[in-house]
Amino acid sequence: MHTLTLHRLDLGSEAAVEDCLIGLDPHETLLTATDLSATRGDGIFETVVVVDGIPQALDAHLDRFERSAAMLDLPAPRRDLWQHAVTVSAGAIRAHTARGAVKFVMSRGDEAGSGAPTGWALGFAPHSRPDGSAPSIDVVLLDRGYRHDVAETSPWLLQGAKTLSYAVNMAALREAHRRGAQDVVFTSIDGYVLEGPNSTVIARIEGVYTTVPTELGVLPGTTQGDAFAALEGWGAPVETRLLSVDELRTADAIWLCSSTRGAAPVRSLDGEPWSVDSLVTVRLNDALDARKA
Amino acid sequence: MHTLTLHRLDLGSEAAVEDCLIGLDPHETLLTATDLSATRGDGIFETVVVVDGIPQALDAHLDRFERSAAMLDLPAPRRDLWQHAVTVSAGAIRAHTARGAVKFVMSRGDEAGSGAPTGWALGFAPHSRPDGSAPSIDVVLLDRGYRHDVAETSPWLLQGAKTLSYAVNMAALREAHRRGAQDVVFTSIDGYVLEGPNSTVIARIEGVYTTVPTELGVLPGTTQGDAFAALEGWGAPVETRLLSVDELRTADAIWLCSSTRGAAPVRSLDGEPWSVDSLVTVRLNDALDARKA
Repeated sequence: MHTLTLHRLDLGSEAAVEDCLIGLDPHETLLTATDLSATRGDGIFETVVVVDGIPQALDAHLDRFERSAAMLDLPAPRRDLWQHAVTVSAGAIRAHTARGAVKFVMSRGDEAGSGAPTGWALGFAPHSRPDGSAPSIDVVLLDRGYRHDVAETSPWLLQGAKTLSYAVNMAALREAHRRGAQDVVFTSIDGYVLEGPNSTVIARIEGVYTTVPTELGVLPGTTQGDAFAALEGWGAPVETRLLSVDELRTADAIWLCSSTRGAAPVRSLDGEPWSVDSLVTVRLNDALDARKA
Repeated sequence: MHTLTLHRLDLGSEAAVEDCLIGLDPHETLLTATDLSATRGDGIFETVVVVDGIPQALDAHLDRFERSAAMLDLPAPRRDLWQHAVTVSAGAIRAHTARGAVKFVMSRGDEAGSGAPTGWALGFAPHSRPDGSAPSIDVVLLDRGYRHDVAETSPWLLQGAKTLSYAVNMAALREAHRRGAQDVVFTSIDGYVLEGPNSTVIARIEGVYTTVPTELGVLPGTTQGDAFAALEGWGAPVETRLLSVDELRTADAIWLCSSTRGAAPVRSLDGEPWSVDSLVTVRLNDALDARKA
């Protein structure tokens, strides 16, 4: 990760947004040893791609940030402040890269501090897809351990919130690498497709582009949402529904969608070669790159 | 939390342990915005109680720290360095409090940094049980979402590792507070007793002090281990076995064991009053306090 800019947000203040943003050197230390981000993974985040200084799908990311905050009983984010912070960061990284990203984070604050949440926005150049291409990926299915309805029965498990507690997601990616793959699709113990550790699944089944509902405790995919909008614009059928693992295995094309990678086509699933629709992949990623906000 | 001391550990160095420990002000910033503790909850920790300058059960905590590191594919901790760091911290907080604690943490490091893990040891005065008493607690049972055998079937879910990704544990405690309780016993979806968000269960069933095996993906309890040693010393029967929720409801006394609270007796379970054995509770906590290491 090549960091470019860092801004701290003063979330304990009610001053004008301009006065709540403090520019820092991204290599400087920012957090105490008692910040709940570091000690408990107790916070939320979003990563927005920035093309030519414009943050992509920022409204969808801010919507999801607010949703995550509510699920974690965090204070409602001051939307104008976060919007300002991302916009400033995006403008600042434009000088360094035409395709960057801004990660914005809110933790529950410092256990030994004032009680205000901690906030920051980090501008960086992502490793993946630096030139706009979306490389095809090898994927394995891994059990997420939960039933498909766990978000409804057990909301304290925070399924569907984008939290800082990502150790399991990182461990799943390491398991994928051990199996010779680069990414993962999580499945429920009762045989349903969920999501990737940092992506949303789109499967084309009998010509219908299909993803799964957020009721499963998966994140609402900001990139998948814009991909579906593009597909609908072309007259392609899209559907959001429960998808069993058996059905996924009948898909004639699968993509994992994420902000930094776009729509990445799956070229193998559990070691079995999978067909890649290069034409649709290029069209999807061109449409994603053409977003103006 | 009242912080007292902070030491950073230089984990990228192979110098003598004394030269790898850097004293800091605990209110100073320590971590960058790209440290994987803060961005991914990707690291491990332990909290050791310190009585009169002596860290309690340090060997058991270091064993568990090593176990967690292996489960997360982190570099094996340099045991002499961590032991030194905790011992120095424990000595330093003695001037402030007769009963303190040292939390020690290792993250995977800085995403934008050298690749070496980040390490620190924080000395603090815990809120709970400052005077050695163990207040009785109201507990609710909450679904952990997993089967009882998930640690064996799906090791990437990291059940049984003490990671920094504790957002779910914190959310479960908030759910307990919403239900008028202070603590939680997690259960598996197939009806077995697991552990608390930061404690180990001991239930007395037909006179036998019972806890559950680590094969369930629960942490090996350092305090529970010493409590069992004390019970065995008194000739009381102890057992480690699968325990169903139905069996737990037949227990005539239940304790939640943790480093900072000792053996805390349960006075209600899911809103139903529970009998407290005050005599055994006092004897257990006296035995825990009498540990010399």
